[in-house]
Amino acid sequence: MGLTESSHGEKRSMIVVQKYGGSSVATPERIKAVARRVVEKKREGHDLVVVVSARGDTTDELIDLAQQITQYPPEREMDLLMSTGEQISIALMAMALRELGQDVISLTGAQAGIITDEVHRKARIIDVQPQRIWQELTAGKIVVVAGFQGINDKGDITTLGRGGSDTTAVALAAALSAECEIYTDVDGIYTADPRVVTEARKLAEISHDEMLELASLGAQVMQLRSVEYGKLHGVQIHVRSSFNHNPGTIIREGSSMAEARIVRGVAFDRKVAKISVAEVPDRPGIAHCLFSALAGNKINVDMIIQGVNRDGINDISFIVARDELEGSLEICRRVAAEIGAREIYHDSNVAKVSIVGAGVANNYGVAARMFGALAQEAINIQMISTSETKISCIIEDRQVEKAVRSIHQAFELDN
Amino acid sequence: MGLTESSHGEKRSMIVVQKYGGSSVATPERIKAVARRVVEKKREGHDLVVVVSARGDTTDELIDLAQQITQYPPEREMDLLMSTGEQISIALMAMALRELGQDVISLTGAQAGIITDEVHRKARIIDVQPQRIWQELTAGKIVVVAGFQGINDKGDITTLGRGGSDTTAVALAAALSAECEIYTDVDGIYTADPRVVTEARKLAEISHDEMLELASLGAQVMQLRSVEYGKLHGVQIHVRSSFNHNPGTIIREGSSMAEARIVRGVAFDRKVAKISVAEVPDRPGIAHCLFSALAGNKINVDMIIQGVNRDGINDISFIVARDELEGSLEICRRVAAEIGAREIYHDSNVAKVSIVGAGVANNYGVAARMFGALAQEAINIQMISTSETKISCIIEDRQVEKAVRSIHQAFELDN
Repeated sequence: MGLTESSHGEKRSMIVVQKYGGSSVATPERIKAVARRVVEKKREGHDLVVVVSARGDTTDELIDLAQQITQYPPEREMDLLMSTGEQISIALMAMALRELGQDVISLTGAQAGIITDEVHRKARIIDVQPQRIWQELTAGKIVVVAGFQGINDKGDITTLGRGGSDTTAVALAAALSAECEIYTDVDGIYTADPRVVTEARKLAEISHDEMLELASLGAQVMQLRSVEYGKLHGVQIHVRSSFNHNPGTIIREGSSMAEARIVRGVAFDRKVAKISVAEVPDRPGIAHCLFSALAGNKINVDMIIQGVNRDGINDISFIVARDELEGSLEICRRVAAEIGAREIYHDSNVAKVSIVGAGVANNYGVAARMFGALAQEAINIQMISTSETKISCIIEDRQVEKAVRSIHQAFELDN
Repeated sequence: MGLTESSHGEKRSMIVVQKYGGSSVATPERIKAVARRVVEKKREGHDLVVVVSARGDTTDELIDLAQQITQYPPEREMDLLMSTGEQISIALMAMALRELGQDVISLTGAQAGIITDEVHRKARIIDVQPQRIWQELTAGKIVVVAGFQGINDKGDITTLGRGGSDTTAVALAAALSAECEIYTDVDGIYTADPRVVTEARKLAEISHDEMLELASLGAQVMQLRSVEYGKLHGVQIHVRSSFNHNPGTIIREGSSMAEARIVRGVAFDRKVAKISVAEVPDRPGIAHCLFSALAGNKINVDMIIQGVNRDGINDISFIVARDELEGSLEICRRVAAEIGAREIYHDSNVAKVSIVGAGVANNYGVAARMFGALAQEAINIQMISTSETKISCIIEDRQVEKAVRSIHQAFELDN
């Protein structure tokens, strides 16, 4: 995969899947600008599949419309409603490309063969049937595909959740053995959020695993699921800006750059809350009882820590998304009563700060250096969690920016 | 067909197809009001299929968006764009019905089995495959269907042209052997436009043929094609207001009311223009040459009149839609040069005024009474055309309202 240059400097045509996000197609002017960019790529001799999201605020406007009708819109109907956003975008993008003299066709998710499971609003792509796309590419057309949406085996429209257009693009790239370019409103993946750390540096390359950790930790340039899909199918993803021509960050396996440094970036997430279930009896099955109840309500739990056993009594602490705190507490209270736990504490004034890098787990000094950077700024660490590629700490929310800057400097990520 | 009442006064459940136009679903408030109305009907024991149009100005907004991208949007892409309007409406309507505790599902044209030919923007329904609708009705659900749209055998979305939602409703009523109710922003079909003739009276019943003439003559309450479809399949159509509960006008075959009066209504159309091709040689094939050239450019021609033959020379006059005048003249000039016609005249300060009724053709006094009414107001008749169910006159545009009032009175349509 990838554009190959022969020894004669001759370029071989290949398929490129480009994805443009909502801000890149927000206005007719922006759509025309994107169309010009697509044509540039086409002129280099590539076959083009262009995945587009809903324009700018369309999604929010549609949600607002639904809210004016009912507080609890059925999920199937929400999907039908939301999918119109991308449908408008593909029609307009196809018109803009035709206006530039291109042969072009637009396809909805269903027409493009994006087959999903039956879960509405967060559907998973279970198959891609790209026959129609092949047919149109073979006829020499640029194919514009609606991101974020698919069809289930009932023939109903589904959507893939926020950021789902990324997954559409990566899934199509996998099915077509194509390169994937994700155009967004940022320049690429940075060592830390440039709005917090002015010295943050753009990464030229990063591995899928590192990107997964960064994405899951709050550096939400791409939808998590799209990176997982890319890892599973070995898709190389170029994340770059649609507002300039700078090279962005390439996500690919075994990137040599990825090996050169132990820590690749510092991420943080302020949208978290801590829950502690205090004095849980030390019996088998207690943790299962608690966390299966949460999972059954589709609540994602992170950084589960069970305190040291004292006299057959445990404390269990964990992290949830801040906007799921209320729902989580309700479930915890119910389970606590069943299992005989004494009390439930919670704290939403916390944030998670993490370092990410392929070598984190196998390099002893790394954790110590991170904790040292926090200590130097007198930041108290409330919880710690480590994995193969990351170390995360829960700290007080108001200290998070100071923490990120201090860690970024400690690992010399700015040079 | 029709709700039947047994001898015990017991009502038997049947399927009712209701269609609500754009003004009826323009705002969340209106959508909720329509939903309440649908539920009323459901509570009478009917199975409900609800066809909805795009909300209020949505269609115009989408056209405007396309115009900002290109002056000549491809028709296939326009259909994909326009169809989002109804898709938004059905999702919102389904939400409003669910909010009222109803079991409900929304279906796009494709999902509802509306199969069309491949002509974009003015597609014709060639088949209705209502399996999914049957299935959902059997499951006890209210089925909300997107009007105006279908799918062709390539799997591409098509639209049925302005007013196409009426045709969707009538086609579904035919396929489901259902009653059809068309809810609009007028109370029904009147003997004349109530804005012009204050004494105009609402008709309780009218035949399909009479309605076809009225619709084609400018009383554009319903799309012409939907009435044709209804006539062909014997669908009874109740045209009524969504803003009140007054009975409207029922369109049905052999209505006894329809026989009672010779003239049912007076219609007019100001959006016409007259073209005369002067001194056409009197040879076979000349008329064919002229009108096939116009037809080839999709221009509808009406009221063709060929003057009396003088020394092998004819004048041919006809009527076109005013907004097609320029295009028509261009074609006429080209053909005139080919066939050796001397000159082309045109006049866009004309209007068509017509009387419609099943008995018009077989009652001699009718035409005379119409001409007498015009003469009484000193209105000059420029062209006359008659058919089985109508008599039309071309007069000066500025005299049209006076003409309509005078004819309405002459036939005593107000009582």
